[in-house]
Parts: sequence; structure tokens; C-alpha cells
Amino acid sequence: MPAAVGSSSLLLPPIAKPLKPPSSVPNRTLSLRPVPAPLSARSRLLGRFPIRAAVHVDKETPENERPDTCLLSADGPESPAPIRFRFEKMIREVQDEVCAALEAADRVGKFREDVWSRPGGGGGISRVLQDGAVWEKAGVNVSVVYGVMPPEAYQAAKGKTGTGRGDSAVNAGPVPFFAAGISSVLHPKNPFAPTLHFNYRYFETDAPKDAPGAPKQWWFGGGTDLTPAYIFEEDAKHFHRVQKQACDKFEPRFYPRFKKWCDDYFFIKHRGERRGLGGIFFDDLNEYDQELLLGFSTECAKSVVPSYIPIIERRKNTPFTEQHKAWQQLRRGRYVEFNLIYDRGTMFGLQTGGRIESILVSLPLTARWEYGHQPEEGSEEWKLLDACINPKEWI
Amino acid sequence: MPAAVGSSSLLLPPIAKPLKPPSSVPNRTLSLRPVPAPLSARSRLLGRFPIRAAVHVDKETPENERPDTCLLSADGPESPAPIRFRFEKMIREVQDEVCAALEAADRVGKFREDVWSRPGGGGGISRVLQDGAVWEKAGVNVSVVYGVMPPEAYQAAKGKTGTGRGDSAVNAGPVPFFAAGISSVLHPKNPFAPTLHFNYRYFETDAPKDAPGAPKQWWFGGGTDLTPAYIFEEDAKHFHRVQKQACDKFEPRFYPRFKKWCDDYFFIKHRGERRGLGGIFFDDLNEYDQELLLGFSTECAKSVVPSYIPIIERRKNTPFTEQHKAWQQLRRGRYVEFNLIYDRGTMFGLQTGGRIESILVSLPLTARWEYGHQPEEGSEEWKLLDACINPKEWI
Repeated sequence: MPAAVGSSSLLLPPIAKPLKPPSSVPNRTLSLRPVPAPLSARSRLLGRFPIRAAVHVDKETPENERPDTCLLSADGPESPAPIRFRFEKMIREVQDEVCAALEAADRVGKFREDVWSRPGGGGGISRVLQDGAVWEKAGVNVSVVYGVMPPEAYQAAKGKTGTGRGDSAVNAGPVPFFAAGISSVLHPKNPFAPTLHFNYRYFETDAPKDAPGAPKQWWFGGGTDLTPAYIFEEDAKHFHRVQKQACDKFEPRFYPRFKKWCDDYFFIKHRGERRGLGGIFFDDLNEYDQELLLGFSTECAKSVVPSYIPIIERRKNTPFTEQHKAWQQLRRGRYVEFNLIYDRGTMFGLQTGGRIESILVSLPLTARWEYGHQPEEGSEEWKLLDACINPKEWI
Repeated sequence: MPAAVGSSSLLLPPIAKPLKPPSSVPNRTLSLRPVPAPLSARSRLLGRFPIRAAVHVDKETPENERPDTCLLSADGPESPAPIRFRFEKMIREVQDEVCAALEAADRVGKFREDVWSRPGGGGGISRVLQDGAVWEKAGVNVSVVYGVMPPEAYQAAKGKTGTGRGDSAVNAGPVPFFAAGISSVLHPKNPFAPTLHFNYRYFETDAPKDAPGAPKQWWFGGGTDLTPAYIFEEDAKHFHRVQKQACDKFEPRFYPRFKKWCDDYFFIKHRGERRGLGGIFFDDLNEYDQELLLGFSTECAKSVVPSYIPIIERRKNTPFTEQHKAWQQLRRGRYVEFNLIYDRGTMFGLQTGGRIESILVSLPLTARWEYGHQPEEGSEEWKLLDACINPKEWI
């Protein structure tokens, strides 16, 4: 049973990279060096890691104990603590909160925890609850990784969204980076209980290798979205209302903007339908104050439990038939299609040799594909499909 | 229930194209023009179709009757009939043979047939047997499509294998093309009965738009491969022996070459393992005489039934446990991963807006993903995994 678990790949920002033809030799860097000794905060982001570490993510090393922080710092945080420390603290708290809430709802299943470190820098804590009373498969992963990425990887990671970040660093040489995030997919057993996905991440790049200094670029990304097999309007409204409340505390334009971004992102292009009923999604966000965005990400992440657990409590024991289950399985098939074909985090992870089990923990335990299946017009299944094809305003 | 079914995308040769970010507008050409009136064989490959037809495959039109030929020709074939006529005839015969053999093995399930035509040129016959006694899902599709592809699509379709075809046509303008093929994936229910995939295709491109003449380029592609969840050495040996016999009738180097090509192609890179136990695979094949390669493709396609049905007869009623079934489902998950992430035909089909049901008929009815599953060393499951990681010489 493998104990090393990493989900660093899920943290990285979008890339659009051609899939390479398969080769008969797995192209993975296998490095089992021990965790490097702590270094001072000042040298944390300097270019002391091999370039390959960022391209082919180093093999994770299993650890027996949860560290206080995955950041390399003997000095402890300065005052006020840099964003990256506070972001790590936040996602660790949210991981605990969410896992506790899920175990409480399940009453039977318990999370299995895998702690790992990455020789290149950083580490993480992966937790999976499989085959519980309520949850078919629930993964809640936290990771904090850093190192140096070559200019090309930086370009790929940065994408082409043109949010105004200067590109001068790219021409200078390898770029030190820091990425932290929480990533989770929760698949319940009951076909009336919806799947939830959330992911919040923070990314920093420093000045190029030979010009140390303050972080030169940073951005936030993330979102929370709901994927039911059957629509309960009160559930969808409740979920979106909590997302909107979190957004409205910071900026009235956030909810409409990130709701649309979510509908656009979770689009299964070849089906012409979305994966589910959406929620909020944002990426490359840096055009607001850093403190405001840390607060906003925290608020969103802390809203996961109140937006979702009440729905689970309402639906987890609803009686269902084999037909309901089969429809849920078909929708799970769509989930697989989205994650394997379109999800940028998954693609990036698979291409860079991230740990497969962690990347694919997002896939459901079971899924189904029927030839020519088409729900009857007006049926409950049809209503769900319609809402996936034509996104609704829920509030 | 949609009746229009096309599998044209499965015929096209490899491309390596970056996955584009999702857009909120499905980018599919919806054309419901009737089938164009028959034209003479001479004008068949000339540039009279809109360029978009080849980039975004036209929506298929359901047909009530199976045509004698999908080729547009009022004149009938010349003598000797051109390769494309004989290839179409061959794949139609093989479709009938394979479907008859599958129904005979199943005794209960019957194929559902969907006949379609494509306004841009050509058509096809799709047959699916779902939820029979032996077969969970079995698709056997034939299609014959032609039209004009823009230079970029031609470049993409041609790939970078450098088989010596001249590239001068590419610079001149849109290229008339012809593609015909049979494509099939057969998923049995019993976990001891293996999945089979086969696909044989023939491709022609004419001179560029403004320089009509004889076909300037052509190539054959295809293969047959076996994907069991459990290894029975006699099955693997039998299957490979029949493939080798088919190869040896034409060229002693074919079997070793195409066996290795198969192992390399069906490689799930992020897992470091192959999809199954391989078989034969070739593409872009044109360095032999056209008649020889037509004969070879025919021999391979006619070998599907004798290489596979005896195995099914031996395994279809073997008693099994829930554990056997769960392992089969995990291997089906791998099948899904390969097809959605790496298979070029699937990718090309999804990107060009081919008919989803036909493209994804290759996916199993059900699949499974468990976190951290690792078969016990030395177990039957482990042996299968080992053979997928380290391909064996079976004969």
C-alpha cells in the first residue's frame, strides 16, 4: 500500500500544453532524498533546487508525523506573518474542519491520512475516506510546494490570461515559486446527495534566480461547485446563496463574475453541457489587495461546510431505486470525462509525473457509460441535464 | 433516442493537438442538409465541399436503409475496382461476420443498428449490443467519409511520422480526402473474459484542389488488441498466435514490428503501464504495395473472430466473485483513462465535434477507481498488472 501522497499538481495554475505521444519509458524523476534541513526564511525562495524538480515533480517521501508547517523556516514567521504562512494555516484549519464535518455526517467512515514531504521543497497532508456510510469517496488534500521552475514552465503555469503581471522575469532565468492549496472532491453514495468539489490555492513567484528580493508576482485561485444527479431547488439555492454571501462580504461584483466563470470552466465541450450546477470559480486573481484576497479565499473555504453539509443531512438517507443509482452513475461518467479531458490541474499533474493516486482521487469510485442514453423529456433526469446545458440563475 | 450515429473520427490518423480551454459556446457545425445526389467517380474527390466540413465534422443524418455503398458513384466501380471500393466491401463483410459471431456467442443480446449519412460525403453503419448475456457493451462501427480538408487539418492528420509522403500538396490548398474504416470495442461481462478492440482503416488524399488527378497519397492503419482483467496464458498465446499467423502470410517482420508498436501505443504514460496484453498495431503504413496492404488488412480483420471467439467461449460462463468483478472494474477504469487521455482517434473526434455516442461507445458500461489500490504481490491481479507494466513475448 503506497503511503506517499501528493496533490501538488492540483495547486498549479492553468496551462495549455499539447498531450505528447506515449513513449515506452515512464518519464518520471525518482528521487528519494530525505527532506532538506530547515533553512532561513530569507533563503527560502532562492534558486537552490535543481530545475528538474519543478518540471517533473519529485517523488514524494512518506512521513510519519504531521509537521507544524510545510514551509522551510527555522526562524518562524515574521510579524505580520507573510501571506504564505497565513494561507497555509488557513488551509490546514479548513482541512480539519471539513474532515471533521464529513466524519460527523458519515458516522461510520474515517479518513485515512497520508503525510508526505517533497525533496524539492514542501509537502502535504492527504486524507481520503472511502466506502463509508454516506461517502463513496471523499478526498481532502492540502499541499505546500516550492522550488524553482524554468522559464518555460513558468510561462505554461502563467497561462495567457494577461492579468497584467509583468513578464520581464521570464526572460531572465529559472523562477523560484511557492504554491499552496487545498483541494477536495466529495462523492456521496446516495444519488440524491450531490458531489462537491472545492479548491483554494495561492501562488507566488520570486524574482529570477540571480536577482533575489521580495516576491514579484502572486495570485489566488479557487472555487466551490456542486454536482448533483437530481435537482432540489432548495439545495441549489442554499448552496449558491452561501457562495454569494461569502462573495458579497468583499465585492458585489464577485458573485456574478465568479458564478459565470464557474459555468464556463466546468464545461464539457464535447457534450455541450456543464458538469453540474456550478458555484464560483476564479483564477489568476491579483487585481485586488493581497489582504483582501486572502480574506476572501478564507471566507470561501470556510463556507464549504455551511454551504454543503445541510444538503447532505437532508439527502443522505433518502430512499432510492436502481434507476436513480444508474443515473447518478451516468453523471459520474460525465465527471470522469471532465476531469480526464479538460481539468487543467489533472492534466498538468499527469503530464508532470505528479502522484497518480492523489491526482485521480477526484474520480468517483464507480461510473457508467450507456450508449445512446437520453432522459425522457420532462423527467427529473432531463431537468438536471437541462440545467447543465442551460445554466440557471439560482438566486 | 438519437438515431444518427457516426464513427468517422475513429478512422482518422494520429494528430497531436493541444486541448483548447473550454468555451461557453459549443463549437459544432450543425448541418442537416440532405445527402447530395450521386456524382461520378471522377469528381468524387474534387474540392466541392465546404472546408468546414472536414474541420468540424458535419452532423450525421439518420437513414432508414443500409446503402449498398457509402461511396458516391452512379457509375459503379471500374475494373479492377479501386482500393477504396474493395476496402469498403471488406469492412462491411467483417462487420457482418463479427456481429453474427458475437450474437451467436451471446445467444440473448441483439445488435441495434444505426445507419447514417454525412452531408459532407459518405456515411456509416453503427451497431451496438448492450447488456446482453455475455456482452456488457459491444460496438462495431463502419464508416466511409470523404470531403476536403484544409492544409492545416491535413498536416495534423498526417502527423510527424515521416513515412516519406511528399508534402508539396500541403502548401497548395485544401486537400480532398477519403477515409474508411471499421472500429470496434467489445466489453464482456464475465471478469475472466477479455475486452477486445480492433480497428482497420484506409486513408487517401488526392492532389490539391486546383490540380485534379489520381490519388497522390494513401496509407493503411489498424490493429487488434486484447485487454483481460486476468491472464490465462493459453488465451494470450492463442490470441497472439493468430495475429502472428495473419502477419506472417505477408511479411515476417510484420508481427514483431506491429507487436511492439501496439505495446508502445496502448501505453498509459501516467501509470507506467499498458492498457492490456497488446496484439498488433500499425499506422501510416504505405511503404509496401497497396494490394499487399489491402490483403494484409483484410487478413487481420478476418482474424478477429478466430482470435477472439474461442477465448470468449472458454471464459464466458466461468464462475466469479465480487472481488473478481471489482478488479475487472478497476481495469475498466484504466481503459477509460487511456481512451479519454491518450487515444488519438477519441481526442480528434471530440475536438472536431464528431458524434459523441459513437466516439465514446468504446467506453465500458461501468468502471471503478479506488484510492491507493495495489494488488498483493504474486496474486492473479498482480500478475496482470506486471504483464501490463512489462510486456511479455507470448509466442
